Amino acid sequence: MKSKSSIARLVRPLVSTVHAYVPGEQPRIKGLIKLNTNENPYPPSPRVIRDVKAAVDGRLRLYPEASALPLREELAKLHGCSPENIVVGNGSDEVLALATRAFVEPAGKTKSSASTIQYFTPSYSLYPVLAAIHGARTNEVSLTSDFDIPELSMLKKSRAWDFGAALTLVTTPNAPGGRGYSTARLEALCRLHKGVVILDEAYVDFAAENAMELALKYPHVIVSRTFSKSYSLCFQRVGYFVGHPDLMAALHKIRDSYNVNGLGQIAAVATLKSLPYYRKNFKLICATRERLTRALTDLGFSIPPSQANFILVRPPKFSPEAWLAKWKEHKILVRWFRSSSVRDYLRITIGTDAEADALIAAARKILG
Amino acid sequence: MKSKSSIARLVRPLVSTVHAYVPGEQPRIKGLIKLNTNENPYPPSPRVIRDVKAAVDGRLRLYPEASALPLREELAKLHGCSPENIVVGNGSDEVLALATRAFVEPAGKTKSSASTIQYFTPSYSLYPVLAAIHGARTNEVSLTSDFDIPELSMLKKSRAWDFGAALTLVTTPNAPGGRGYSTARLEALCRLHKGVVILDEAYVDFAAENAMELALKYPHVIVSRTFSKSYSLCFQRVGYFVGHPDLMAALHKIRDSYNVNGLGQIAAVATLKSLPYYRKNFKLICATRERLTRALTDLGFSIPPSQANFILVRPPKFSPEAWLAKWKEHKILVRWFRSSSVRDYLRITIGTDAEADALIAAARKILG
Repeated sequence: MKSKSSIARLVRPLVSTVHAYVPGEQPRIKGLIKLNTNENPYPPSPRVIRDVKAAVDGRLRLYPEASALPLREELAKLHGCSPENIVVGNGSDEVLALATRAFVEPAGKTKSSASTIQYFTPSYSLYPVLAAIHGARTNEVSLTSDFDIPELSMLKKSRAWDFGAALTLVTTPNAPGGRGYSTARLEALCRLHKGVVILDEAYVDFAAENAMELALKYPHVIVSRTFSKSYSLCFQRVGYFVGHPDLMAALHKIRDSYNVNGLGQIAAVATLKSLPYYRKNFKLICATRERLTRALTDLGFSIPPSQANFILVRPPKFSPEAWLAKWKEHKILVRWFRSSSVRDYLRITIGTDAEADALIAAARKILG
Repeated sequence: MKSKSSIARLVRPLVSTVHAYVPGEQPRIKGLIKLNTNENPYPPSPRVIRDVKAAVDGRLRLYPEASALPLREELAKLHGCSPENIVVGNGSDEVLALATRAFVEPAGKTKSSASTIQYFTPSYSLYPVLAAIHGARTNEVSLTSDFDIPELSMLKKSRAWDFGAALTLVTTPNAPGGRGYSTARLEALCRLHKGVVILDEAYVDFAAENAMELALKYPHVIVSRTFSKSYSLCFQRVGYFVGHPDLMAALHKIRDSYNVNGLGQIAAVATLKSLPYYRKNFKLICATRERLTRALTDLGFSIPPSQANFILVRPPKFSPEAWLAKWKEHKILVRWFRSSSVRDYLRITIGTDAEADALIAAARKILG
């Protein structure tokens, strides 16, 4: 038997130093109100359930569509583009990871900007993990204290932001801040960039604006979307990019050949055929978000305005960690990011109205 | 609008030179006898269909088990190990790709063996693609003319084989040759290796022996398995590695957080609870394989013995390409690898007895 150190030798030093992404807890506790991972509180449409159930038969033995073409055709209709503008992934996490490998040189091989993955902080906490896994440099620039993107003139003057970075990731609306950014401002930002810019619109269906037009206007701009949150499909892992055909072709070349499972593809196609059902839910969630924000603000919480299906709250009286524990006693699970720039906050996913009521009632009890 | 060359500049030169893996055709033609991608002709077990159908409801909105723990627990019971010995992927293609990124340095950064992915030819045609995507060196050594692994003494003497390679991939039983290798011989080979050796047992359920014990005996040996072929689950993308916990931990760190879709996990767990159903099918497929081999041999085909759910045939009278076209006219699809060391052969997946009969009848007509 080999010694411990001789086993460690088998793993790349780069990988040994990676700190893996920590996903939110997924406890299956009966009666738990789960507001920690931004899942949609409403089920997929009846059509999705029906179409997926109908596909569960002997055909599971066959390979799925290798490039998810029927789904890409439906998405192309929706976004007014061609299937060549689209690559579908095993969740948007997969396409984000593919982008690091397609567009960014590992550090050490080439000049700095070509090895740089750049993003604002706080934003999606996966980005630095993807950079670490790929051996890329990171360039992190802080958002303003109210989660806004710094003024372009400031970004240019400070020189901290690298307009030549190989890959820039912008979460819009921002996570975990929730702030939305106007398409006009995003366009002005993108126009200054020489590398690839990904606008990560995981939460955009809960926002006032989306920037899809930029992905079809600028060859270096990609919009990332997911079926997980707005379309209640976390379980089946479907996300996608829209962008220039040449960039999409590069991603297609390096993805696994059958990267999107068959039932996920069927569910996503059925989703696109029942959009009115989902749009009604977006409105419900936004209304609940506004009501919950008002109620918690009245109780002393400080809450920046959100255009996502979550709010980031700075709680009164107790520490965020204490609130996390206290809400848990009431069987309500929210999210606290221990080691981040938002450690003074808790992130609360917008659930149903009844879940919001339970959260507010528990908060009142906790405040005494 | 940027010019074509300024768009090409956004993609890594490494990626621009990659030739993507070419999966077999997946035509959905009514009445087609599809013997080109090694799918199992029999459906998943009734329990799989039932359990997956029962899971298709509002819970699709929730994230799946992030590390597929319930499935890893079932697999650990089956293989007599612990869940820490297992990592599950979005098909075994994903875990194979993860292995290249966890165990192999991109070329140029370090000495040759640390950047080397090594395999025998012919074997799974994905391996060179994975190496190209990762920027690794490849070391290819030919199998003997009857698809056997060269004698160890020969491998040592010729010095073509690199016993220090960071990653060695052995398809066992071999694809597309079909030849099986004894565990004793594989063990002798593995013992001489300093880097990671993956025994890719995608087809092992149709073979006389498997080498799972080696993954639990040697820290540098990993066995790769998939639910796609033997377990009729191509559609849902579930494959896995068994190996030393430290190697598995490295793979867990760099995989996407929710890399295995929920319905795939449920299907795989249900599969493991209905193994007798599948074992009956393995026997059927092996019997059909022997019968088909005899019948085609009688017609003048040359066929090395196979321990997989396919046979590799060197056809009489016409070229393989001509046979491909002629069988297609009879609505039978088999596989020809144009640019490989087996271009004189066709690979035929073992289907049902009726499909074998149709193939034989068509061959008789083609021979006239």
